[in-house]
Amino acid sequence: MTLKQIIEGTDTKTGRAFDLTIQILIVYSLITFSISTLPGLGETSQQFLHISQLVVVAVFTVEYLLRILVADSKLKYIFSFYGIIDLMAILPFYITFTVDLRAIRIVRLLRVFRIFKMARYIRAVERFGIAFKSIKEELVVFFGATFFLIYLSAVGIYYFEHVAQPEAFKSIFHSLWWAVATLTTVGYGDIVPITLGGKIFTFFILMIGLSIVAVPAGLLAVALQKSVRSISGK
Amino acid sequence: MTLKQIIEGTDTKTGRAFDLTIQILIVYSLITFSISTLPGLGETSQQFLHISQLVVVAVFTVEYLLRILVADSKLKYIFSFYGIIDLMAILPFYITFTVDLRAIRIVRLLRVFRIFKMARYIRAVERFGIAFKSIKEELVVFFGATFFLIYLSAVGIYYFEHVAQPEAFKSIFHSLWWAVATLTTVGYGDIVPITLGGKIFTFFILMIGLSIVAVPAGLLAVALQKSVRSISGK
Amino acid sequence: MTLKQIIEGTDTKTGRAFDLTIQILIVYSLITFSISTLPGLGETSQQFLHISQLVVVAVFTVEYLLRILVADSKLKYIFSFYGIIDLMAILPFYITFTVDLRAIRIVRLLRVFRIFKMARYIRAVERFGIAFKSIKEELVVFFGATFFLIYLSAVGIYYFEHVAQPEAFKSIFHSLWWAVATLTTVGYGDIVPITLGGKIFTFFILMIGLSIVAVPAGLLAVALQKSVRSISGK
Amino acid sequence: MTLKQIIEGTDTKTGRAFDLTIQILIVYSLITFSISTLPGLGETSQQFLHISQLVVVAVFTVEYLLRILVADSKLKYIFSFYGIIDLMAILPFYITFTVDLRAIRIVRLLRVFRIFKMARYIRAVERFGIAFKSIKEELVVFFGATFFLIYLSAVGIYYFEHVAQPEAFKSIFHSLWWAVATLTTVGYGDIVPITLGGKIFTFFILMIGLSIVAVPAGLLAVALQKSVRSISGK
Repeated sequence: MTLKQIIEGTDTKTGRAFDLTIQILIVYSLITFSISTLPGLGETSQQFLHISQLVVVAVFTVEYLLRILVADSKLKYIFSFYGIIDLMAILPFYITFTVDLRAIRIVRLLRVFRIFKMARYIRAVERFGIAFKSIKEELVVFFGATFFLIYLSAVGIYYFEHVAQPEAFKSIFHSLWWAVATLTTVGYGDIVPITLGGKIFTFFILMIGLSIVAVPAGLLAVALQKSVRSISGK
Repeated sequence: MTLKQIIEGTDTKTGRAFDLTIQILIVYSLITFSISTLPGLGETSQQFLHISQLVVVAVFTVEYLLRILVADSKLKYIFSFYGIIDLMAILPFYITFTVDLRAIRIVRLLRVFRIFKMARYIRAVERFGIAFKSIKEELVVFFGATFFLIYLSAVGIYYFEHVAQPEAFKSIFHSLWWAVATLTTVGYGDIVPITLGGKIFTFFILMIGLSIVAVPAGLLAVALQKSVRSISGK
Repeated sequence: MTLKQIIEGTDTKTGRAFDLTIQILIVYSLITFSISTLPGLGETSQQFLHISQLVVVAVFTVEYLLRILVADSKLKYIFSFYGIIDLMAILPFYITFTVDLRAIRIVRLLRVFRIFKMARYIRAVERFGIAFKSIKEELVVFFGATFFLIYLSAVGIYYFEHVAQPEAFKSIFHSLWWAVATLTTVGYGDIVPITLGGKIFTFFILMIGLSIVAVPAGLLAVALQKSVRSISGK
Repeated sequence: MTLKQIIEGTDTKTGRAFDLTIQILIVYSLITFSISTLPGLGETSQQFLHISQLVVVAVFTVEYLLRILVADSKLKYIFSFYGIIDLMAILPFYITFTVDLRAIRIVRLLRVFRIFKMARYIRAVERFGIAFKSIKEELVVFFGATFFLIYLSAVGIYYFEHVAQPEAFKSIFHSLWWAVATLTTVGYGDIVPITLGGKIFTFFILMIGLSIVAVPAGLLAVALQKSVRSISGK
């Protein structure tokens, strides 16, 4: 049983134990990361979170170095998708020593990229990849149409509501927010048309918009089912 | 006409009458249960509900014991899905005698599980079961992706909105609530991004999210149609 | 050219003119009906609406009698779908003479059934009928599941939110309103969970609910496309 | 290399450079147009936007004249879809000199039609066109059903809520706004039923409505996938 088998393979017991350890650490790391954003944490909690953080980074650093060590082509691993993800999982920690205090907050939030380390262990990711690739062209068509429609909606509603609600529909940029919330049917209700023209315009734009915005889900459902079928050989 | 035919079968008149009685009692029980949560009920109403409850539990207890009696394998029935459901339909009542007062409220709400007794009489349940099983793998893929996306959205919006709205986006946990309400397009409007960054982030996350969150409905629609076809032999 | 050809057929010029007249009157009748609900109408407007109403009812009554006259089997027409609709289009007017004042408002609103007269002229209705019939079984499955899910959601949210928001989640009946607005993703935002338990419960119920509630649209889309195909012989 | 090749073709370097210039100008023009609606712009910004506007119109005018010049049939181009779009992209500017001040605002907003100039360069537009055409009949069916359903919903909710909320549900026209926001599941929450009857009515109308309103997205998803397939020859 070589070191390579343990780190890259899943056919030995030690290999599976290694994988499981990393997975548990990823989840643990994300939970402590989330907790660390809670306001009003006590001194003890903060110290515990700090030590957790040190342990996690230490293990991930060792893992990263080991993966480089056992890789057939070291450079290929380093610049592969997972190589970059593994580096990004530890980099934010080391960067916090070098950057000035103001930038620390955003650097800390980059720890969230550790979630991508999980992708290595989930077969589903591969499937999603295949499904997405097979409808790439359709998705491009759809995104173009969505941008187009949202922009037109924003200009339209700006025309109808600007005079009646100069604060909410201050400019086309402000109207874009309404267009996004409405066409996705989220409908927060923070900005709502009040003029007759604006309401009729909303009706027609929704009639067209609903047909456009919900399309990619249908496309993906079909593609996903097909890709799962072809992989599992059903 | 044996007792077994009456209780388990539907080919005798008495058997169908027995089934119908149980079904009516289930619906009646759920309605009185719902009414009992209404505040400000009079003395008479409460007494009526109490007696209803006693009658329902009595009948369901007799039914449960009879089903054990006529079962070919008593143990197999007791630990079967419907055996456990039948027990759970009466257990909450008997438990209320043994537990202390504070826990009584939650135990009472467990009466809702009586709704599952209805499953025995609905052919549709079987169909849903088949449909779900046939897309199990795809649903797992989807749930993984949804959790992933919601967590990323929460971290992202926390970054953009935390400073501007420290109360609404207090921590990543608070931001998760926004992510759930937004990505499912429910959009209650109790928490809404107000910064430019947060709004643009919401737009992009929705563009991706809509494609993910609505997928299982599409999958289930296809699977359901297929399963109904194969059962009814169309 | 017989009277029958004019009234029932569409292959003569007079027949098509007759159809068009009725269609225009239906739309006209619905518009004046909507206008009559506007508050603060002047004396002249009200008189105009009243005369319009008289003309419309007169024409529809003549149409109804003519249709009976030319029908091959008078009884069959009277009790057919369109026969009943034609009667309901004029009945509310005649009833207002016989009922007391308080009931008049609801009787007036029954005029809305005139919209169903339109169905005779729209080929699409037939298609929808075929599409619906072909997925009847699946729709029954779905409606059962939806009722089931909404009831469970209401009981669950009642348990989590009743103590924190005794006014909004007063009883299971009040909680049902939240369940409907949430599971359909309408999300008015008039009642929103505020406890941690209620929010987590909402997340899980939405994950399951979205897969259920959006299913019939998928079913109908497939069925509709098929039915249109088979009719137009594509 | 003739002028025609440069303007209409994409197989020469100069031709591609010409296309790219126009595309960049369209996007630039839309961005400056959006910025010009921002309130509180300084003197310098406004002057810059004004000059940008002059340059854009100048180039688009030259482009329009050149396209007429090189067209095989001048009249055919002028009255073609793109010919009209190209004219509408510059017309608003020239009209502002002739109309009185009050109409200027709406004329300015017509600049948004420049976005349609972009259609010439996006292959996706052609695909959407094919997909839409193939489900034209189904979409007509759907739009009829949607109008029908929204009108019925408005009359129904008017009946249930008018007495309890005379302000929000003032007339059938006011109720139509609620029907649109609810059946599309946008659910702004600005008008919400509060009576028991209104809530139960909302539940049933949503159960039917969801099946109708989401249909065209499903139809379009299928049609779009097919059209892309047939074009790319997969």
